Amino acid sequence: MPKLRNPILVCGLPDSGNVAKLVIDQLVKQLKAKKFAEIYSSSLPPRVLIRQDGTVEPMKHSMFYWVSNNGGRDLVLYTGDVQPSNPEAAYALAEKALEIGQSLGAGLVLTVGAYITGEFSKEPKVFGTATDKELLKEFEGIGVTRISEGNITWMNGLLVGLSLLRNLKAIFLSGETSGYIVDAKAARAVLQVLGRKLEIPIDMSELERRATESETLVKSMKEIQDRGDETGYIG
Amino acid sequence: MPKLRNPILVCGLPDSGNVAKLVIDQLVKQLKAKKFAEIYSSSLPPRVLIRQDGTVEPMKHSMFYWVSNNGGRDLVLYTGDVQPSNPEAAYALAEKALEIGQSLGAGLVLTVGAYITGEFSKEPKVFGTATDKELLKEFEGIGVTRISEGNITWMNGLLVGLSLLRNLKAIFLSGETSGYIVDAKAARAVLQVLGRKLEIPIDMSELERRATESETLVKSMKEIQDRGDETGYIG
Amino acid sequence: MPKLRNPILVCGLPDSGNVAKLVIDQLVKQLKAKKFAEIYSSSLPPRVLIRQDGTVEPMKHSMFYWVSNNGGRDLVLYTGDVQPSNPEAAYALAEKALEIGQSLGAGLVLTVGAYITGEFSKEPKVFGTATDKELLKEFEGIGVTRISEGNITWMNGLLVGLSLLRNLKAIFLSGETSGYIVDAKAARAVLQVLGRKLEIPIDMSELERRATESETLVKSMKEIQDRGDETGYIG
Amino acid sequence: MPKLRNPILVCGLPDSGNVAKLVIDQLVKQLKAKKFAEIYSSSLPPRVLIRQDGTVEPMKHSMFYWVSNNGGRDLVLYTGDVQPSNPEAAYALAEKALEIGQSLGAGLVLTVGAYITGEFSKEPKVFGTATDKELLKEFEGIGVTRISEGNITWMNGLLVGLSLLRNLKAIFLSGETSGYIVDAKAARAVLQVLGRKLEIPIDMSELERRATESETLVKSMKEIQDRGDETGYIG
Repeated sequence: MPKLRNPILVCGLPDSGNVAKLVIDQLVKQLKAKKFAEIYSSSLPPRVLIRQDGTVEPMKHSMFYWVSNNGGRDLVLYTGDVQPSNPEAAYALAEKALEIGQSLGAGLVLTVGAYITGEFSKEPKVFGTATDKELLKEFEGIGVTRISEGNITWMNGLLVGLSLLRNLKAIFLSGETSGYIVDAKAARAVLQVLGRKLEIPIDMSELERRATESETLVKSMKEIQDRGDETGYIG
Repeated sequence: MPKLRNPILVCGLPDSGNVAKLVIDQLVKQLKAKKFAEIYSSSLPPRVLIRQDGTVEPMKHSMFYWVSNNGGRDLVLYTGDVQPSNPEAAYALAEKALEIGQSLGAGLVLTVGAYITGEFSKEPKVFGTATDKELLKEFEGIGVTRISEGNITWMNGLLVGLSLLRNLKAIFLSGETSGYIVDAKAARAVLQVLGRKLEIPIDMSELERRATESETLVKSMKEIQDRGDETGYIG
Repeated sequence: MPKLRNPILVCGLPDSGNVAKLVIDQLVKQLKAKKFAEIYSSSLPPRVLIRQDGTVEPMKHSMFYWVSNNGGRDLVLYTGDVQPSNPEAAYALAEKALEIGQSLGAGLVLTVGAYITGEFSKEPKVFGTATDKELLKEFEGIGVTRISEGNITWMNGLLVGLSLLRNLKAIFLSGETSGYIVDAKAARAVLQVLGRKLEIPIDMSELERRATESETLVKSMKEIQDRGDETGYIG
Repeated sequence: MPKLRNPILVCGLPDSGNVAKLVIDQLVKQLKAKKFAEIYSSSLPPRVLIRQDGTVEPMKHSMFYWVSNNGGRDLVLYTGDVQPSNPEAAYALAEKALEIGQSLGAGLVLTVGAYITGEFSKEPKVFGTATDKELLKEFEGIGVTRISEGNITWMNGLLVGLSLLRNLKAIFLSGETSGYIVDAKAARAVLQVLGRKLEIPIDMSELERRATESETLVKSMKEIQDRGDETGYIG
């Protein structure tokens, strides 16, 4: 494993709308990031996934690195199949990922996820909350809207909160989503912000395709709802 | 940190009506008590709070001290953002707080909380239960009503129960509350008792304002209910 | 603490109808058994009980001994305020009680509890299941009916099951109860069997009084039900 | 205990339709496999089973061996009364069984269970997912249908997933079942596949009898349902 130059740790664990995982999976795929660690835990839910070819895959978390080819900052990427089954394990896994990131030289953590509104948005925004005001301000400059109340749950929240206790700078970037569907549009919005910060041109083609599918689905759902409403008026 | 003179440990962890936290927050704010310890635990719920300025705040418990400026007893104050997520952690955190309080010389523990009745009270009472009859009698002398059945749950209960096992004198003071709203009136009632015991004039202005808001809310709820009842009679 | 002569360990942890606790409390009270151990655990539910005099009582399990005054076998008694909050603690506490009993010389364990039927019985039976057939047969000889399917849950079950693994002889004696009320009649039935085995005249006066109260309650419930049925026929 | 020749570890922990346990119990009974290990855990549910003769049986997992009498491969068999009560224990018990199997020379693991469809099937299929494609292909050759999505939960899933991490070859064989009844037909289907692989003639008489009972039950349920439907049309 090469020595990384001032890397940024980019994290996203499965959450509502699968936004976090779509984002990290897209980055790993596009950048051809190299997997360097698999993290197993008996506090991940007790099950195995079945792959399309009929083989099994144990539940795990994974870490990847990417060496920048344009003189920019290298990346460490962290995602997983599933969130753990209890609070203690959520803390332990978040600590482990930050510890590994920090040991590789990361001083900045970007954590991605979903911002659930219960409504379908045409142009999902990206909302942010950070360990410090300067970092938040920087991201407000590239299209992020500040959150100023509420809380972030499970590992995507802990990764920012525990960064503060480790003197790491960290921001949580969340794509606006209804919470009802796997939301490629929300993931695309988050990736656009990441692309600006990381100065990496993100290949949106697959997410565009998925986002179009999402839009068609949402349109159908709305039409059904509208027809329902109409019927309501007639009757 | 200065050596404290015969300090009293005053505790309150979030509970129904948020009575406990309102009380300790008001004491900390008014007395400008100094924070001397933050307690983190992986058994606190896995999430971070978002502050109004957009920055995050990890879940924690906090301890403060206050050196009396009127010759009275010093205070150690203990509160937190949230109760832990399992019984074992509730015991461990209560033990930790009592251990710290005891190491600072505290021999008396006052724990505050809510006494839920399911009804809105005009003049909420303060109910008490203690490690010994003499302490209870003392507080009955300053307006506290004895509880003589039932139980106290989670950390506000354990802080009194574990005090008994540590040979600390302790009393649980609970403000009568409906359990339906954040109850500043119940908190005010508890603070009045604390003010008498601690011989500290408590600044009630903020809680008065909040209590008025509570009263207006309750009045509205009752009016809606009454109209509902009327409608019921007419129909 | 005196050396006990071939003592019997008699156990009962709170269960349906509170049968187990009524039985052990009655034995402790009548025999004026001496408490020699209090067992605390952070896996007992996090709360304190409030006594009638306004003082608090932490959750605990307790052990007592009684030296026979009629040449019979001595007793070790085990009960508690509440069952623990997770399986691991149920195993640990049952192991601890058996270990203490065994260290005091007990080779026989009698565990008492409830046998829930969902119906009110005029003359509740006592059902039994044991570590070995001989012991079961002995108790069938003094009025116990054999159970031959199902399972016994939580600590009253574990105390018999773990006895088997420790080469202790053990029997579970359960009083037939509806499961709807605190059932003094079921407790009385179990005590009658215990009295025969232990050759101790059991003072039934308090349980008789309670049982009469129970009967009156059940009668009232049945009358209400019957009236309900009648009304049903008329309407 | 004799040295086993290239044994296969065959596992099945209680699951839907009790398919897994029916399969292993039948193998143990027919082969007169010898029990060589009982595994106790305080994470098994806190209860004891009651046998028909009135004696108790603590919850446990058990391992057996069988020395082939036809020159074929020996067997190690693993089953239990119940799945554990938390994820961590499911991992720990699966690891323990694989560790024991591996220490006895097993390089191949067959895990059996249920494939729930919600419908009653006349000829239940056997579905499979494996640690590698070759093993899966081999079983496709003897009547197994490949699964290519979804996941397997609790210990039957972990036994395959953790095999992968231990470089053991493993396959999960699941009998198609409605999930509504104890399903002897599903168990029979799985046993037929096992019989082919292990080259052991399986005695199906008891399962046939049970399967006929199942079929009669299903038929009755369908008739009731059909009558219900008819009544629906008439009314």
